[in-house]
Amino acid sequence: MNEPAHRLILMPSGRQGQIAHGTTLLEASRSLGVELEAICGGRQTCGKCLVHPEQGEFLKHGIRSDADHLSPPQADEQAYAAAHGLDVRQARMACAAQVMGDVLVQIPDTSLARKQAIRKAAGDVLIEVAPAVRLVYVEVQPPALGSAGDWERVQAALQEQHGLSGLHIELPLLHSLQRTLREGQWKLTLTLWRDQQVIRIAPGYEESLYGLAVDIGTTTVVAHLCDLRTGAVLATRAEMNPQVRYGEDVMSRVSYGVSEAGGVARMHHAIVKALHDLALAAAQDAQIAPEDITDVVLVGNTVMHHLALGIDPVELGHVPFALATGEALDLKARDLGLKGVAPLAQVHVLPCIAGYVGADAVAVLLSEYSLLDADGATLIIDVGTNAEILLMAGERILAASSPTGPAFEGAQIKHGQRAATGAIERFRIDRKTGAVRYQVIGDSRWSDALPTGGTLVTTGICGSGIIEIVAELFSVGVISATGRLPPNANHARVRAAGVSGEFVVATADESATGSEIVVTQQDIRAIQLAKSALYAGVRLLMDHMGVSRVDHIKLAGAFGSYIDPRFAMAIGLIPDCDLSRVVSVGNAAGGWRSNRAAQSGAAAGGGTVGAAC
Amino acid sequence: MNEPAHRLILMPSGRQGQIAHGTTLLEASRSLGVELEAICGGRQTCGKCLVHPEQGEFLKHGIRSDADHLSPPQADEQAYAAAHGLDVRQARMACAAQVMGDVLVQIPDTSLARKQAIRKAAGDVLIEVAPAVRLVYVEVQPPALGSAGDWERVQAALQEQHGLSGLHIELPLLHSLQRTLREGQWKLTLTLWRDQQVIRIAPGYEESLYGLAVDIGTTTVVAHLCDLRTGAVLATRAEMNPQVRYGEDVMSRVSYGVSEAGGVARMHHAIVKALHDLALAAAQDAQIAPEDITDVVLVGNTVMHHLALGIDPVELGHVPFALATGEALDLKARDLGLKGVAPLAQVHVLPCIAGYVGADAVAVLLSEYSLLDADGATLIIDVGTNAEILLMAGERILAASSPTGPAFEGAQIKHGQRAATGAIERFRIDRKTGAVRYQVIGDSRWSDALPTGGTLVTTGICGSGIIEIVAELFSVGVISATGRLPPNANHARVRAAGVSGEFVVATADESATGSEIVVTQQDIRAIQLAKSALYAGVRLLMDHMGVSRVDHIKLAGAFGSYIDPRFAMAIGLIPDCDLSRVVSVGNAAGGWRSNRAAQSGAAAGGGTVGAAC
Repeated sequence: MNEPAHRLILMPSGRQGQIAHGTTLLEASRSLGVELEAICGGRQTCGKCLVHPEQGEFLKHGIRSDADHLSPPQADEQAYAAAHGLDVRQARMACAAQVMGDVLVQIPDTSLARKQAIRKAAGDVLIEVAPAVRLVYVEVQPPALGSAGDWERVQAALQEQHGLSGLHIELPLLHSLQRTLREGQWKLTLTLWRDQQVIRIAPGYEESLYGLAVDIGTTTVVAHLCDLRTGAVLATRAEMNPQVRYGEDVMSRVSYGVSEAGGVARMHHAIVKALHDLALAAAQDAQIAPEDITDVVLVGNTVMHHLALGIDPVELGHVPFALATGEALDLKARDLGLKGVAPLAQVHVLPCIAGYVGADAVAVLLSEYSLLDADGATLIIDVGTNAEILLMAGERILAASSPTGPAFEGAQIKHGQRAATGAIERFRIDRKTGAVRYQVIGDSRWSDALPTGGTLVTTGICGSGIIEIVAELFSVGVISATGRLPPNANHARVRAAGVSGEFVVATADESATGSEIVVTQQDIRAIQLAKSALYAGVRLLMDHMGVSRVDHIKLAGAFGSYIDPRFAMAIGLIPDCDLSRVVSVGNAAGGWRSNRAAQSGAAAGGGTVGAAC
Repeated sequence: MNEPAHRLILMPSGRQGQIAHGTTLLEASRSLGVELEAICGGRQTCGKCLVHPEQGEFLKHGIRSDADHLSPPQADEQAYAAAHGLDVRQARMACAAQVMGDVLVQIPDTSLARKQAIRKAAGDVLIEVAPAVRLVYVEVQPPALGSAGDWERVQAALQEQHGLSGLHIELPLLHSLQRTLREGQWKLTLTLWRDQQVIRIAPGYEESLYGLAVDIGTTTVVAHLCDLRTGAVLATRAEMNPQVRYGEDVMSRVSYGVSEAGGVARMHHAIVKALHDLALAAAQDAQIAPEDITDVVLVGNTVMHHLALGIDPVELGHVPFALATGEALDLKARDLGLKGVAPLAQVHVLPCIAGYVGADAVAVLLSEYSLLDADGATLIIDVGTNAEILLMAGERILAASSPTGPAFEGAQIKHGQRAATGAIERFRIDRKTGAVRYQVIGDSRWSDALPTGGTLVTTGICGSGIIEIVAELFSVGVISATGRLPPNANHARVRAAGVSGEFVVATADESATGSEIVVTQQDIRAIQLAKSALYAGVRLLMDHMGVSRVDHIKLAGAFGSYIDPRFAMAIGLIPDCDLSRVVSVGNAAGGWRSNRAAQSGAAAGGGTVGAAC
């Protein structure tokens, strides 16, 4: 006897088809190409696949839809609806409701297996959330005399309830498996990595799935905590790279490793401790348990990459700059000695391209590649103590790294500081009066527009601030084309300091520290060195590519989000380009990239990075 | 133009065929189905593929063979021959010598890739040596500006020189890779596990490949150190299981884990420490470096298995005796905290069958299965504190474990001891005179056949000794059918000890300790309990199998090699059977089994064990 078939229409996608009588909405949707969430594998536990049947005539589609055209809710579904305050007729579990007649069903975004995250910077972009880890819930047969071992019965349940086989489990999880199974009364939620390994087990039903993406900069380490089920960035934390005490730039860290016994191990432990601290701080911000973080993605330049892995970077200190490995790596947190996160949390380290083009450049590439404007040459710059530079034209991508030094991050600048509340980030000199005004991070007011007696809480100058200051001083003639700030330069704020001058940006009255904030001749030289290094890298790539100008410039990273392109161009930090085509993909991209980086585990591991470069 | 072909004959196998002009003997042999050793991948470095060309007419084969029918040796080959005192015309490297004319070549056993080890016990048996680990030597491209990372170039060399790809390397090896490569001047020997993982790297050419097979008994832990290139057992070491202090049998250890906080961890660390000590002692005996041990195989009953893995055996303490896992496991030494051997040494743990049929039973099965006599029912007994019992008939195999207690290992016996030098292992009472005589391990003389005034260095009674004593005492009527030793039994060596008697086996004059060695009523009860447990297990299997008698009995393990089947049968330790069909596959099998166990990594991992049971 042939079962009758019914029309099923899925909204908002509009997908539709004939569905055999009695098919669940979960299976039916899958057959129509719409994958729904099903952590519990269709066991009516997780409530992630809720959908809404519509009532009435749908003339456009030529059907009469009715909630009664689905099989009536049973006890489990009713209990779930009652517990969550839902109308069980209007919010059906797709894994339970069977198609018994024509029906049109609304599928909310939250019930889609592949969610989309929105990147807010530089135009909205939809990104598919496809993390390397996922949760599966299983109900396991209790043991009987002569039955297989607990892990073997968990595997049988994974096969039967999720079609998964050949999963590997690490010894530490076997230590806790029996207790966890009994605590969860034979119900278990497993966190899987790429459907190959079990990396965490929790009793009963569980839905915590978090990832941490970390950019290990030479000076600053930034961590983004993501909800890997929704793609949301829950928290972002930054701290100084503690290796700074062993050397401010990458070469001095290589030297420290060579000259100091145990130096490499010391720098390795310092950065692993920083990763631990950042994970804990971000977890606290997001009010989640840090051990619920099961996926970590790390990027950094090649020296940061080697030190994070505990590999001596000595070979990166001389020609031919041989990497120990440039492959994408998949490790466990415990391999690095990284505590705080789940002990078997997967750590994905993005690949490196060459001796000085590291995993951070690959991250920029992965983030921006799909978003490239098709026409002309595009330059992407991620400024830091090492600047990552990518130049793309047509099918070609060239990459370089420039040792700009830490000046752009506020280091090696007399009153420099990281881009944080109180740092001067904007600066203007009135062309007529010579009057000075500035803005600090965390306050939208200019220093000359405050109520009487008011001051800004000013703590120092960040990278974007020093660029504007140098550009403005050059623009009004206080410093020369060669960068000289003479002691007798023509401005009331200039005073002699030995053979050179220095410029008072903020008076002692204005600063939070009670001391004045100045820019010295040395500061200007540091900025000149940094911008020259960056510009030289850009020029070399342009020459190599055979282009005389760039059509688009994208400024990535935190610095890129604060910098004003006009001033960057004024001091020759970036090559000339139509200002409307210079965009920041900065801070917001950070959060987004973390999300993207979490996905890229699969992509990079699968070799697409190699193919792209 | 077609190249001419030549006749090649390989002796002693007699394989032959037509070989294209210029083919190396290595390739030619392979094409004829004879795989030669080639650690260096044919780079004329290891000298493992030496073969001997014959001179003269071989009428039977119809060829004239000549050493000159091979390409002349070049500098590398000449240098190797000179360094090793070889005649370079008579000892050719198969990887270098090309076939230029008809030739008959002798291939020594040492040059075969698959060596054969001979098992000496119970009839010689040839076993193919096929370990899970192997060595490969590569010559790696030095780095140049812009070249791939060191590990990537090692992978390229593995692909090019050995056809290997997709190998995984662990982080600790990446830590030392760069130094090792440079130390070896871009030559490297890698130890591979199942051609999937690199588990050790050494600079230059290296040929150390050792495995350790360990039987973790409840009372005794035995380790066999094998040369995995030849299959030779280099050393065997035994020591008391240090967990004995936490409980003498498996149930008391389960109880200790339940009742004492941290008890499981304490027992785990104790056994791991014992493995470490045994590895070091065996390596010292064999004069090898313990860190050259790269493969470890562990077997044990289910409780020993769980404790060795650090898994709480609590569930094995009550119905339904649920295993955490019964799967074969592949771990790293560091996962267990096992030091001394190579840090990434592979640890293979054989699978368990059921709650009380463990990896030790599987090891017995793997060792004996292929050697079974085809006809009738065969009983295999591995006696220990837990006895493993296997009954096979036709296609069926039944397995059980019996809690015999440690009496057979000399524990819980007043003057009992392990089977070691000085232990009484043979005992006779003259049926006419009642005179007592005995033999101790390490001396082939009987105690009544010594020069005047001579004594044997007697330290105690081992398991086989106590069985012979009990059997003889029963046989001459000193003890009754129920095991009663009355204080007034009719023998000069019997004296009262409370309500029972005790029997003086050796006088104080005879013993090394200066104290007499006696057998007490309690000792006899312990033996009765032990043999009853064993016999009950055997009977249950026989009933279950539906056989009323067994046709063959094999006694495995150290105990099995010492025991005299006549006495074992006399006291009812084993069921009645034609005495000529009771064989010991004992001590010698230990060494052999270790070798076999090293192979079984692949077999067990591949699932053949599951299929066999």
